Amino acid sequence: MKAKVYVTLKPSVLDPQGKAIHHSAELLGFDTILDIRQGKYFEIQLADNLSETEANEVATNIAKDVLANPVIEDFRVEIEK
Amino acid sequence: MKAKVYVTLKPSVLDPQGKAIHHSAELLGFDTILDIRQGKYFEIQLADNLSETEANEVATNIAKDVLANPVIEDFRVEIEK
Repeated sequence: MKAKVYVTLKPSVLDPQGKAIHHSAELLGFDTILDIRQGKYFEIQLADNLSETEANEVATNIAKDVLANPVIEDFRVEIEK
Repeated sequence: MKAKVYVTLKPSVLDPQGKAIHHSAELLGFDTILDIRQGKYFEIQLADNLSETEANEVATNIAKDVLANPVIEDFRVEIEK
């Protein structure tokens, strides 16, 4: 079973890396892009004997403990069968 | 209109950062996790007057030109209305 974890900065937190990418995009002529925010994406391969609920629990725990900083980041977990 | 771009290393490319995260997870006792691979995730805010096809084209172009390195990375674009 596979879990996907998306980590994004909270909307109130500044994203200088995203701003830099946006600026590069503008210089390259992408004038229909209003804003870019960068986040992180993780693909987690889980043991096959887990139920969907257990997989969701494991992925949520590791997202909270290791992958995201809950002070400045939000995360979302998706389970793929 | 919003586009989401997911950038992942090609399966044949080694991912030392993912390996390090996996190792940390093991030390913390997550023994049902078999592998972790890290990728990048971008949220792109696009001008509202674009059609879905145009939005997809802009997002694909910027993913190819700026966000991903096509030699070692794959990317996937999703448009959110």
